[in-house]
This record gives sequence, structure tokens and C-alpha cells, in this order.
Amino acid sequence: MSFRATVLTLYPDMFPGHLGHSLSGKALERGQWSLETVQIRDFAEDKHRTVDDTPAGGGAGMVLRADILAKAIDHACAGNDRPRLLMSPRGRPLTQKRVRELAAGPGAIIVCGRFEGVDQRVIDSRGLEEISIGDYILSGGEPAALTLLDAVVRILPGVMGNDLSGVHESFESGLLEHPHYTRPQVFEGMEIPAVLTSGHHGEIKKWREAEARKLTAERRPDLLHHPVTK
Amino acid sequence: MSFRATVLTLYPDMFPGHLGHSLSGKALERGQWSLETVQIRDFAEDKHRTVDDTPAGGGAGMVLRADILAKAIDHACAGNDRPRLLMSPRGRPLTQKRVRELAAGPGAIIVCGRFEGVDQRVIDSRGLEEISIGDYILSGGEPAALTLLDAVVRILPGVMGNDLSGVHESFESGLLEHPHYTRPQVFEGMEIPAVLTSGHHGEIKKWREAEARKLTAERRPDLLHHPVTK
Repeated sequence: MSFRATVLTLYPDMFPGHLGHSLSGKALERGQWSLETVQIRDFAEDKHRTVDDTPAGGGAGMVLRADILAKAIDHACAGNDRPRLLMSPRGRPLTQKRVRELAAGPGAIIVCGRFEGVDQRVIDSRGLEEISIGDYILSGGEPAALTLLDAVVRILPGVMGNDLSGVHESFESGLLEHPHYTRPQVFEGMEIPAVLTSGHHGEIKKWREAEARKLTAERRPDLLHHPVTK
Repeated sequence: MSFRATVLTLYPDMFPGHLGHSLSGKALERGQWSLETVQIRDFAEDKHRTVDDTPAGGGAGMVLRADILAKAIDHACAGNDRPRLLMSPRGRPLTQKRVRELAAGPGAIIVCGRFEGVDQRVIDSRGLEEISIGDYILSGGEPAALTLLDAVVRILPGVMGNDLSGVHESFESGLLEHPHYTRPQVFEGMEIPAVLTSGHHGEIKKWREAEARKLTAERRPDLLHHPVTK
């Protein structure tokens, strides 16, 4: 069984988007994962196909209705058991650990919010796991869903070529990655650090660890004090 | 002058991707922002159009060459002065503050890394600002660039309709957003919390703040102790 993604959205045309290209696109064609969209609007009941309404208690924006979204979710969940995600800035931050868990599972049902938010009762009753991809505001859940799926698909078995499969990953060590260099030996008068061309593997390893620690302390002291859960 | 994005990539077909749809797509058509891609490979010099090489000091993966990428960047920068970004998991985390700064400027030149990384000397010599959209690994910088642009474009003048422009934003208060509810009044036996339909605006405000604080403490204690820079 390959990884199966079902995305609930008001903008199905946004998919597969960038996932239709490069390695993820080839893997999609080969059937190593699948992607289907469900148009939430198809579950509306009035002639205007309304899916949202004003927030109870007042305020700007519109809220996705619980009853309509619940029908769309129940449709997507029928006969299968996959994690149910809601892309939302209120969610827990996405980590590489969660990415690996999702990739090891049967797939995911991903709800893309729009407007002000989603009625809390559908989140509670359908057990939606709210996931945030970062502390910034997007136009909707769609870019977030595409980003999450990119992270998951790249680690599915057989998706990356052998040439990439051994690549060291940032965060695996709990540190940001050390700087990289490659040919030419001199670029605009700047040389590759001598240690890297010394052939002393022990020294290279030590230099890289020191550089990674320095960079992490400078840019992400939070990772040193509160390591990313892996 | 509208916001002008230039993306340096090995996969120009991934753009505009989801940005070609919905409000960002309409704004693109109207010329409220522009997007062009530069194929890094066009700046290679050998017949195989090679852009990368093995890392100095050894290790898996391939590193984008400084000389070739520098030529592509210089081409994109000719005659204009825009922030130069490199999407990278080593970067500083993207914040809504940085999104707002970028949206207030002339645009951005965005370099999408692939392979193991980018030669440090081009980062240093071209003053690339490394930005990370989150603590997970993507197939390359492209999904990150699309995500960043989505966040920027949605707040450009005239892009969002008036119906959305007053929407409260998560993180503005330094807290996650309170729960939302809308009609129907009863959904599967669950009622909208009585306070929200009470008409007492002071009580509604108090309830929402308390809920936002509770949710933030539960999911994002880091925001309470180290507020997101706004």
C-alpha cells in the first residue's frame, strides 16, 4: 500500500502544484504515492454552495461550518483509517519526527482551512490534529499542505534516487548544518578552508561540528536549550 | 512599483504553482506583483550543464557551485536592489515581521537550494540572507520559496478583498487564536459556548483571551516565554 493523501480544500486546482514536478512528480506518476482532492463546497446544501458563516460572538472574517466540513471529512474517511490533519497557525509546529511518522503510515487526510478559521466542534468531533508549518500567516491551508506533503513524500521508499539517499539531514544532530564548499578551489580570491582539503578525517569532523555549533548558537540558540524533538 | 519576485531554481516549472490560483493568482494577472524564474543551469559552462560538485572534505550529496550560482545571482541583481534570500533549513526562522518587511519593499531575489547545500562563498560574497520556513526537511528550496511568497503576497496592497482585510491574525497578540464557532447553533448535540451568543462584548473578549492563553500554554509555551518577534 503506497502513501495516500486526500486533501479537503476549496481550491482543488492548487494540487498537485509543485508536487507534480521533479522527484515527487515522478513518484506520483509511478504510483509510489497518490493524491486526491475533495472539494468542500460539494457538501454545501444551499444553491449558493455556502460553506462559511460569520463568527459567533462577532469579529471579522468568516468561519468554515462544522456540519458541512464534517460531511466532507466523513466522505474522505469512509472505509479507511488515516491521520486527520488540519493545517492551521494554531497547530503544533511540524517537526521532522512527525514527518517521519506520517511517511511510515498509510497516508493522511488533510483539511485546508480558509477564512478566519474552522468551527471548533468539527475539530473536536472528528479528532483533527492541528499542524502549523511556521509562525507566519498564509492565504490558507493549501500552501501548508503542499509543504507538508513535500517533506513526507521525499522520504517515502524509492522516491529519492540513491544519489540523494545518504544525505545528512539538518536537525538529525540537533544542530544546524556546517558550511559546505566544493570546486573551484579558489572563488573570487576565497579559498576552501584548508582543513577540508587536508585529508585528515578526524580534523574535518571536528571542524564541521564546531562550525555547526557556532552557527546554531548564533541563529538558533533555542535548539541548544530546547532541542527539536526528533 | 509593484512587488517583484525573481526565483533562481533548477525547477522553474514549479512556479507559479499554487500562487497562480485564487487571490494571489488574480493579483499576478492584474500586475499587482510579478514573478520570474531564472534557470541556474543556464549559467553552467560545460556541455553537461553541471551546476554542482562533491563536497570538499567528503560526505554524501552534492554542493551547488559558488561560481555558477554567483553568475545567476549577478544576472538577477543587475540594475536593481532587492533583498537576496536563500531558502535553507540552516536559516533564521521566517517570522510574520520579516514577511511584513519584505512586502513593504521592492521585491526579493530568492535562491532555491537543492542537493546537500550551497557553497558558503557565494552566500558570503553575495550577502544571501538564509531563511528557514520550519524545522523539517524539504526536497529543495522551491516549496519554501512558494510558501514565503504566499505569505508576502497576501498582505500586498489590494490583493485581499475587503471581506478579508480586517481578519485578526494569529501571532499579532503573541498568542495562538481562540476557538471559532458559527452556525448551526447545535451541531451533533454540541452547542456554541453560551458566552458567545450572550451579546456581552466584554465577556466575549475576556473568554477569547482566556481561551487563547490556555491554548498557547498547552501547545506553544515557547511563545509565552519567548514571544515571537513582531
